[in-house]
Amino acid sequence: MIQEITAANLNTDEFIEDKIARIREAVGDGTAINALSGGVDSSTVTMLGHRAIGDRLKTVFIENGLMRRGEPERVVGLFNELGVTVEIVDAKNSFFEALSGVTDPEEKREAITQTFYREVFGDIVKKSGARHLLQGTILTDVDETVAGIKRQHNVFEQLGIDPQASFGYRIIEPLIQLRKDGVRKVGRALGLPAELFERIPFPGPALAARVVGEATPQRIEIVRKATAVVERLLSGTGAFQYMAILHQDRMTGMRDGKRDFGRQIEVRCWDSVDARSATPTRLSFDLLEQMAADLLAEVPEVVSVTYNIAPKPPSTMEAV
Amino acid sequence: MIQEITAANLNTDEFIEDKIARIREAVGDGTAINALSGGVDSSTVTMLGHRAIGDRLKTVFIENGLMRRGEPERVVGLFNELGVTVEIVDAKNSFFEALSGVTDPEEKREAITQTFYREVFGDIVKKSGARHLLQGTILTDVDETVAGIKRQHNVFEQLGIDPQASFGYRIIEPLIQLRKDGVRKVGRALGLPAELFERIPFPGPALAARVVGEATPQRIEIVRKATAVVERLLSGTGAFQYMAILHQDRMTGMRDGKRDFGRQIEVRCWDSVDARSATPTRLSFDLLEQMAADLLAEVPEVVSVTYNIAPKPPSTMEAV
Repeated sequence: MIQEITAANLNTDEFIEDKIARIREAVGDGTAINALSGGVDSSTVTMLGHRAIGDRLKTVFIENGLMRRGEPERVVGLFNELGVTVEIVDAKNSFFEALSGVTDPEEKREAITQTFYREVFGDIVKKSGARHLLQGTILTDVDETVAGIKRQHNVFEQLGIDPQASFGYRIIEPLIQLRKDGVRKVGRALGLPAELFERIPFPGPALAARVVGEATPQRIEIVRKATAVVERLLSGTGAFQYMAILHQDRMTGMRDGKRDFGRQIEVRCWDSVDARSATPTRLSFDLLEQMAADLLAEVPEVVSVTYNIAPKPPSTMEAV
Repeated sequence: MIQEITAANLNTDEFIEDKIARIREAVGDGTAINALSGGVDSSTVTMLGHRAIGDRLKTVFIENGLMRRGEPERVVGLFNELGVTVEIVDAKNSFFEALSGVTDPEEKREAITQTFYREVFGDIVKKSGARHLLQGTILTDVDETVAGIKRQHNVFEQLGIDPQASFGYRIIEPLIQLRKDGVRKVGRALGLPAELFERIPFPGPALAARVVGEATPQRIEIVRKATAVVERLLSGTGAFQYMAILHQDRMTGMRDGKRDFGRQIEVRCWDSVDARSATPTRLSFDLLEQMAADLLAEVPEVVSVTYNIAPKPPSTMEAV
């Protein structure tokens, strides 16, 4: 049973001091490794690890080809400013190979998870010689694993290594007693910039979760462009989450006086407190029309744009 | 060269008298046949033919299974009140057989056209013994045939009969000098009820044009239910046209706490003067939310509802 530390009861200075000491103790004079995604959890763990063991923590950012525009550069640049070196590993081909021909949402998720743990990060861990892995697991992940919602993201298990039985392999999960709000407090206390906490929720499978059907490099590039437009126009709305979704269905349109079966982008923008239920944000038609115009202008493959008007439930926040 | 009669220059009484005389002259003591769809053109031709030759005009309404809810009964009942007998021909199976496995929009249109002319109506014409066919062709249809947009809807040609060469076969097109506004004037003068003229535009392939992908009886029934909801809620808006479109893409949703890949309905509602360009109607969010709620409640297969926000062009009014 993991002892929860609520955000209200959390003393960040004590927490940070304690976790740094435990990481040092665990790693000793060895090395550790972790994967940084740019999310709050992995960013906070990266800072804790860096404070604890400095350059003996190797932090990698895996470029899976499914990120938003400029995201790898943004995240790595941000950590460089904090004095943390992050290595970008270009694994685009591995992910797109694994996603080739996969259209089922669950299978897409599984292909990305398997490629990440078994192939790309698994390889990096093995080659690094590190025996310690820092992971940003939080208490909610544990709950969800028990509830069968999220999958087990234990890289050693994915590699077929039982960390208990194999001497020397160890997973360190410094955030496991916290929930999201606690992690945000610790991250702020560690000097992470506000930008990181203000990011709207973004799914694990990244832009692959924003295309209906196969996630090819071309289709990901379409939804990447659309995502840039939607985030630019909706970041000022205070909405809980917003997204562009590329449909597989083709729609009739007209280009230069000729019939053209083009792409449709669906925009979703949610008002929500805790993501358990949500309603579409009542955006102004000025903004909706601006969004359609910008999407049509900046994403030439698109001939049709819709706005989601159904609440969650029975809808979900993401479409895929 | 056809001599156009503009609505402004149209004397409806003279026009009707002239056309009745010409139909009588052409048919003599023979019989004629026509297909009534319930649209303004075929309704006006039916009334002209009925005035001219009474029961010697056989009018059929072909139930293709692709109509809106209650449409065959509504149209036939309306003409019965006007003293015109209309025979409903149930041809649902022929159309659904022809549409089976067809997903391309052009091929769907072609399957419906071919089934109508070659199979269903062609058969009825042959069996009727009528040598005269009344058709509601208007001048815009002729323009569009020349421009290559609409197909030739000449049933004799479809049957491989050259009406010029085959003695006795004759097509009568009493409305060919008029455009839509002229036809409306003539229809009103012939006593057609306002209801017929107030109907929003509806495409030839009917609900088959409102499903992306295959038009199966089940999928047509889903969009039929959705169309009833959308027409109920939007008929009071004064919009030029409005519609429900069933997508082929499935969306993630939640039903009774379980993940459910369900259907998405896209709603389009257009402001337009002449259909050449159009903008989405700025409906209130009260109405949009009501529409989503009613669609989710009345069409159980649906988990997701969107509203179109892209203008024509580059969108088209219809999606398929």
